[in-house]
Amino acid sequence: MKLSKIAEILGIRVDIPQEIEIVKLNTLQEAKEGELSFLENEKYIKYLPDTQASAVLISEKHIRYLPENTIPLITETPYIDLAKISRYFASPIEIDEVERVPPQIGKNCKIAKSVYIGSDVKIGNNVTILHNSYIGDRTEIGDNSIIYPNVTIYRDTKIGKDVTIHSNSVIGSDGFGFATDSQGNHIKIFQNGNVVIEDRVEIGSNVSIDRAVFNSTYIRKGARIDNLVQIGHNCDIGENVVLVSQVGIAGSTKLGKSVVVGGQAGIAGHLKIAPFSTITAKAGVSKSIKKSGKIWSGYPLFEHSHWLKLQAKISKLLKG
Amino acid sequence: MKLSKIAEILGIRVDIPQEIEIVKLNTLQEAKEGELSFLENEKYIKYLPDTQASAVLISEKHIRYLPENTIPLITETPYIDLAKISRYFASPIEIDEVERVPPQIGKNCKIAKSVYIGSDVKIGNNVTILHNSYIGDRTEIGDNSIIYPNVTIYRDTKIGKDVTIHSNSVIGSDGFGFATDSQGNHIKIFQNGNVVIEDRVEIGSNVSIDRAVFNSTYIRKGARIDNLVQIGHNCDIGENVVLVSQVGIAGSTKLGKSVVVGGQAGIAGHLKIAPFSTITAKAGVSKSIKKSGKIWSGYPLFEHSHWLKLQAKISKLLKG
Amino acid sequence: MKLSKIAEILGIRVDIPQEIEIVKLNTLQEAKEGELSFLENEKYIKYLPDTQASAVLISEKHIRYLPENTIPLITETPYIDLAKISRYFASPIEIDEVERVPPQIGKNCKIAKSVYIGSDVKIGNNVTILHNSYIGDRTEIGDNSIIYPNVTIYRDTKIGKDVTIHSNSVIGSDGFGFATDSQGNHIKIFQNGNVVIEDRVEIGSNVSIDRAVFNSTYIRKGARIDNLVQIGHNCDIGENVVLVSQVGIAGSTKLGKSVVVGGQAGIAGHLKIAPFSTITAKAGVSKSIKKSGKIWSGYPLFEHSHWLKLQAKISKLLKG
Repeated sequence: MKLSKIAEILGIRVDIPQEIEIVKLNTLQEAKEGELSFLENEKYIKYLPDTQASAVLISEKHIRYLPENTIPLITETPYIDLAKISRYFASPIEIDEVERVPPQIGKNCKIAKSVYIGSDVKIGNNVTILHNSYIGDRTEIGDNSIIYPNVTIYRDTKIGKDVTIHSNSVIGSDGFGFATDSQGNHIKIFQNGNVVIEDRVEIGSNVSIDRAVFNSTYIRKGARIDNLVQIGHNCDIGENVVLVSQVGIAGSTKLGKSVVVGGQAGIAGHLKIAPFSTITAKAGVSKSIKKSGKIWSGYPLFEHSHWLKLQAKISKLLKG
Repeated sequence: MKLSKIAEILGIRVDIPQEIEIVKLNTLQEAKEGELSFLENEKYIKYLPDTQASAVLISEKHIRYLPENTIPLITETPYIDLAKISRYFASPIEIDEVERVPPQIGKNCKIAKSVYIGSDVKIGNNVTILHNSYIGDRTEIGDNSIIYPNVTIYRDTKIGKDVTIHSNSVIGSDGFGFATDSQGNHIKIFQNGNVVIEDRVEIGSNVSIDRAVFNSTYIRKGARIDNLVQIGHNCDIGENVVLVSQVGIAGSTKLGKSVVVGGQAGIAGHLKIAPFSTITAKAGVSKSIKKSGKIWSGYPLFEHSHWLKLQAKISKLLKG
Repeated sequence: MKLSKIAEILGIRVDIPQEIEIVKLNTLQEAKEGELSFLENEKYIKYLPDTQASAVLISEKHIRYLPENTIPLITETPYIDLAKISRYFASPIEIDEVERVPPQIGKNCKIAKSVYIGSDVKIGNNVTILHNSYIGDRTEIGDNSIIYPNVTIYRDTKIGKDVTIHSNSVIGSDGFGFATDSQGNHIKIFQNGNVVIEDRVEIGSNVSIDRAVFNSTYIRKGARIDNLVQIGHNCDIGENVVLVSQVGIAGSTKLGKSVVVGGQAGIAGHLKIAPFSTITAKAGVSKSIKKSGKIWSGYPLFEHSHWLKLQAKISKLLKG
């Protein structure tokens, strides 16, 4: 989409020295040439000087931090404007009746007749897909993977080898993204990224893994995800991580290798959890964990040994 | 169903001056002429004098509060009797083979061939319904709405315009209603109401929204509901409310406009939450919130600033 | 599978006096002749002397506790070896194209055409199965039961009479079982047991009930399970138990008759909860409850009256 068209849609006046084709929306950090970014939260000002975005939605007072060649789209509501323009970058929703690129399917696959396979899907060897699962457009599924009945895999998902996904799980539904205007109305930020599931991952039943707003949500090699778990958009779930049932992980959080999270625990968004951390059941994590290999409990969160001590002290209040 | 027949089924002796056709079960407050209500919990005695119900299941000692023209069905187990009679007011479950009233479908709809459409369904213009979703009898779906794959929408659901529902969510399953007899056996209260979803609502994946026992469960305009959220029967979720992932809201609770509820928080039944309240992640709400615009945390619940202070005090116990 | 073959696969040297056919893997307590068991956790040594297993994966230092006729398969990694061999005891995953034993279906059933019925399924009289549900191989469903749309029932599930299962619930998905090697890789323990649901049970929407690793996960007569509940492998949910929405119960936990568990509460694995216990919303149970008929709250868990008192004391800290 032409940058001048974007400016026109948003009602932003801008002097574009040479017309640019904007191919994607992205964060300041990850944007490349030809991409449009935005600055809403001042804590990301630090990423402005080095951004490679071709243009940025930004308020006037911050434009001095932009690199010389980056075009500012000046607005007092960058996040709302991002939301408004995001719909133009969404993939169309295709269904049955549309002309589809036929799938590439490997050897020895067992795919039930009731399975829906979208356009341009690639399926490896020895893949099993059971009754009625939905495989969205351009999805890839590696060798030996098993998809149980009634699974929904949205478009553009990449699934590795030896992956198992249990029934009624949803991979790649929209992340929970919206901007709220001054009247309290929520404007959807279309979620144009995808989900990448690496080799040897097992995912339980009724799990929700959201697609990224831009780029990808990652589930790394060998991770184990139990039933009814929520993984927000743009999370990065490390190698061999274990998420017990009903865990919730908010958007953009990164779990290091071999992190274990107990049942019903929750982790807030935009955090980093050090490798080999254990978070016990029902804990609430609202800050990043930097030391690796520790056990953490409670909400607010304490090191497990401290939490045990604290609970002992608290229970003494009963006798006070 | 004739009132005399109801009395006969329940084994209740009653002198009916003139036969009445009972068309619906309802609460004391909401019942109209031709409807049967009940009094079990004494805190609802206050609704007896003004009820418009034609008949009420009630214990003998409370009949003096009834309006003159309301017929008492005298029983020591009004709630169990309500449960027993509720099955006679349930809609039959219809399936494929039954003769169906063909749907009315607007212009430019994309509906996958595998979608099930029940009897007498009304679908607006530009509606998209993906693979294998189930649209129950007499459901209505407004213009521009999108239903992703494997969604189940039970009978009689009303969905507005510009609504999005993500995969594997369930709208209109039975509320969790039963009466328990003296032997501990649970007797189902058939859930004969429905769900109403207003315009511009977005609902994530694996969400459960239960139908009302009588009347409707409401999701008001512009609400945003994340994945794996539970909404009990007869809730009223206000305009532009935001429910983050894994929130649970028990039956008959009313959330005012623009309430925000953080991930894994829970709200008990029969409460009212004032508009513009924010309830932070993992909080537990067991009382109504009357002041609007405040932030609340923890379980038991405190104003957020108090909760922070309290947690600081608690953590000092560790050093004591 | 021949015991000598198992030893060969695992690279274990063993002197087998007479070849044995191993028909099943099982716990020390439940194993019968012809079955292979294992000892990893020393707290189960007490079950060694009386085990009826024909052979046991066990470290050398514990073999002295074994009955004389039980053959030890000596290994320093019994649990990992159990995991490695478990895949050979898994049922094959069958789909559409395979030759199926036709189902036995009773009188007056309503089964939607889109329902998938596996091999050798037995369905009673007056059973209703709605759109697109999946009924795995060798499943049995009793009279008058209702399966709503998009339910997935894995192979070998036994469902009693008058059972209702709401949409998008999953019965019999794999339990969350794996052994972790010294490199942190997880090795799946194939879940070769099943789920048994007794008469008059009602199950909400988006519920996950895992199959047993060996033997059965039980849901006893008359239990009521609300939406989005998790029940781990090998649980035994007692008669008339009530599980409110978003409850999670970890593996091998046994709930006595008429236990009530409030919304979002969690119960750890391998516990016993006494009959008529009430566990309030959001509580966390990490120890068995031996006294029946009490109410319990909080995490850590207290008797409800103590918990209320404790919370009152804690809130006083604010004024300190």
